[in-house]
Amino acid sequence: MDDDPATEILEATYRALCRHGYADLTIKDIAAEADRSTASVHYYFDDKQTLFVEFLEYLYDRYTAQLAAIDGDTARDRLAALLETVLADDETGTGLEFRTAMLEVTAQAPYDDAIRARLAAFDDVLFDRIRAIIEDGIDRGEFDATVDPTVATEFLVTAVSGAYTRQVAMDRSPEQLRATMTRYVETRLLAE
Amino acid sequence: MDDDPATEILEATYRALCRHGYADLTIKDIAAEADRSTASVHYYFDDKQTLFVEFLEYLYDRYTAQLAAIDGDTARDRLAALLETVLADDETGTGLEFRTAMLEVTAQAPYDDAIRARLAAFDDVLFDRIRAIIEDGIDRGEFDATVDPTVATEFLVTAVSGAYTRQVAMDRSPEQLRATMTRYVETRLLAE
Repeated sequence: MDDDPATEILEATYRALCRHGYADLTIKDIAAEADRSTASVHYYFDDKQTLFVEFLEYLYDRYTAQLAAIDGDTARDRLAALLETVLADDETGTGLEFRTAMLEVTAQAPYDDAIRARLAAFDDVLFDRIRAIIEDGIDRGEFDATVDPTVATEFLVTAVSGAYTRQVAMDRSPEQLRATMTRYVETRLLAE
Repeated sequence: MDDDPATEILEATYRALCRHGYADLTIKDIAAEADRSTASVHYYFDDKQTLFVEFLEYLYDRYTAQLAAIDGDTARDRLAALLETVLADDETGTGLEFRTAMLEVTAQAPYDDAIRARLAAFDDVLFDRIRAIIEDGIDRGEFDATVDPTVATEFLVTAVSGAYTRQVAMDRSPEQLRATMTRYVETRLLAE
């Protein structure tokens, strides 16, 4: 691997989180997943809390890059691609195990300022990306001019958050939720 | 109090949950809140898990009654009243402390079939109530006939779930989220 050791440990944290969930996750689990000694993980990260905050920053960089890479000829295509990216249900980093662990992390946010600040950053970058697409769609006459970009964006960001919760906690199909949101875009945002 | 002891204990569980959160909640905390001995709580409920499942059923009955009591002359009024009820931010049982604890419970659902089944029942009853209102609005010509009741309902239920998460974990204003959803109803569901 070309990655530096700290990045390898963060990548191993991802796999360990999916395997063990957040509450039970230990530095030992992460070390095992990274094929390293616990001491060598501690060399890079003092404790689980420090490692985990770094891990959220690593995820944030990845998420920001994913959102920036979304492309399409029209605003409608870009919004559909974005919804597919954030609601995909596959092994590229957004599977059920990962979302299950992230819901545990989210439930810890009210008790942990560092986690809350990082989760709010994910929320902000998604908000900004969606609003930019909607504003562009309105400017180009592709989306209905009566759409308020901030309101539509807030609604979509909130629904994405709810889609994760309903998938993880209530076994709702993320594919169906994605179809519902795409249909909202098709029928409620597009100009007639 | 006129309530039977088991109901008194469930009411005390509500207050103890708001005070201590879910992860740290003990039978001892609940007993203290109910002004009873731990032994007398154990007389009615074997353990925390049994008590908690009963507690979710007690909450479910309350929630169902609240949703059934929603009234209004028009479908639009009823939908606005419903959103106000489920997204209210006050002391009547839907405050921030309660939602914070319930997010912890939700994060446990993937690991606990009994909790997952009860949370899915809350989701179902909200879904059914919203869909009935939207169908009625379409039938009366109040809502746009091109609205698909199931899609619009799924979207609203998912957004309500996301509104709780974003309020609790990211400090987003529930009032603003409620205003956004009400505006969706006003601009996207109502017939022209």
